[in-house]
Amino acid sequence: MRLARCLIGRHPRFGIVEGDVTKPAGLKFRPINNNPHALHKPPFPHEPSHATVALSTVSILSPVTPSKIVAVAGNYCAPAARRRIKPSTLVPNLFLKPSTCVIGPGAPIFYPAFSSLLLHEAELAVVIKRECRNVTREAVADVVLGYTCANDLTAGDIQRTEPHWTRAKGFDGACPLGPWVETDISLEDAGNLAITCTVNGHVRQAARTSQTIHNITDLIVAITQAMTLLPGDIILTGTPPGYGPISIGDTVTITIERIGALTNTVHAESGR
Amino acid sequence: MRLARCLIGRHPRFGIVEGDVTKPAGLKFRPINNNPHALHKPPFPHEPSHATVALSTVSILSPVTPSKIVAVAGNYCAPAARRRIKPSTLVPNLFLKPSTCVIGPGAPIFYPAFSSLLLHEAELAVVIKRECRNVTREAVADVVLGYTCANDLTAGDIQRTEPHWTRAKGFDGACPLGPWVETDISLEDAGNLAITCTVNGHVRQAARTSQTIHNITDLIVAITQAMTLLPGDIILTGTPPGYGPISIGDTVTITIERIGALTNTVHAESGR
Repeated sequence: MRLARCLIGRHPRFGIVEGDVTKPAGLKFRPINNNPHALHKPPFPHEPSHATVALSTVSILSPVTPSKIVAVAGNYCAPAARRRIKPSTLVPNLFLKPSTCVIGPGAPIFYPAFSSLLLHEAELAVVIKRECRNVTREAVADVVLGYTCANDLTAGDIQRTEPHWTRAKGFDGACPLGPWVETDISLEDAGNLAITCTVNGHVRQAARTSQTIHNITDLIVAITQAMTLLPGDIILTGTPPGYGPISIGDTVTITIERIGALTNTVHAESGR
Repeated sequence: MRLARCLIGRHPRFGIVEGDVTKPAGLKFRPINNNPHALHKPPFPHEPSHATVALSTVSILSPVTPSKIVAVAGNYCAPAARRRIKPSTLVPNLFLKPSTCVIGPGAPIFYPAFSSLLLHEAELAVVIKRECRNVTREAVADVVLGYTCANDLTAGDIQRTEPHWTRAKGFDGACPLGPWVETDISLEDAGNLAITCTVNGHVRQAARTSQTIHNITDLIVAITQAMTLLPGDIILTGTPPGYGPISIGDTVTITIERIGALTNTVHAESGR
């Protein structure tokens, strides 16, 4: 199931995207009558409405509005190096991005005025299903709702000069998410998906999620040893080699196998 | 005005604390009928109810439930060193704490199982009044609702071994806040308040907020150059010298002039 959030009239509505993604013109959006990320409520069953609308006629919003985004740095490496690393002895290098940096598919990325080196970073995003803490390795699959595409946008110059990445990775718009949450991918399959990033159609990043050092289970165990995750919270799983600069006017597309494509265009801050 | 949040029956209610704080037994809580931190609503005027309850008969909760907490490291220093620093040439060392680490006055601090060096850090917390971005120095006073006490609890051993402080300062319970938001302190006065921290009655930290390198205006300008602040968001302004270890059974009290006292006791994680 593809769980999306769209603007119907002036109201954001959660719903299900139906149809064949290889034929975008035929996709339909069927609103549901509950919030699949509501706290203290099970995300399923949904109450789908009878009416659908053509997806092409509505604005797609970020599929979730997380309370927090927990991300990991340096999680992809070359296969030879990966064989030398024992992930179980390493703690993932975790950082936070605030909820205010989330934008949806198609929303403009405003080039931050305080930076002159904006970088794209394609990532697989894990969407949390239920409130959880101290999750065991065996229980990880039960707390994951599904997966979406993310761009962990980074002000690379600020990242080098400020010890923490609060401003470098936390600016408004620094986390495009979408186009929807795909719930029909198993935890095992999520660990081996093709991920690519193109800028103006040219491939900049192309990898598989199997090339990570810490897998999704490692990340959720390490994070929830410390903090509670809430429904709709996002785990960013790291970016493969090839991340690099983008400029005003560039169009960035992140595509993940079995999920879909997230496209955003870079605009001048002055156009906000 | 002292803006608090208390449990009335089983319902959290915002309200106003009335009376003389030097006579705690006589303090009253008057519920208000709106959420002073609601987005897109002005925080004032409130609609106070006619009924009051004795504050001593209700549980005081954290006075706000922020979407994010933006904190600053290394913001206090000795007067001699401070004279050599030009704050205008420095960017504050900002980091994030997630919303899930907030607890209220009297709530137990659970010693994190993954740490063996829990540190208290007394801080003045600024509470944001309205949605804001790119705030000018002149406009800072207009975006501040008031001030409360905070404890920026830190797993000191984890802070030394992990590059980012996501787990070290982001664990559940790592941000006690309270007892209420004092709205009658000017921005200027907030820059010169006495702040103390006692552990089991012994003074561990005693300073004035005038000893910071970056003042509240510097912090809000730097933060909002990058990100939007929302009503109820919290800025932690740094901790003075003297922060140090606390153990299971310890009672930590942070007192700030003209605001009040925030007290929490450390419990074993196993008691959660």
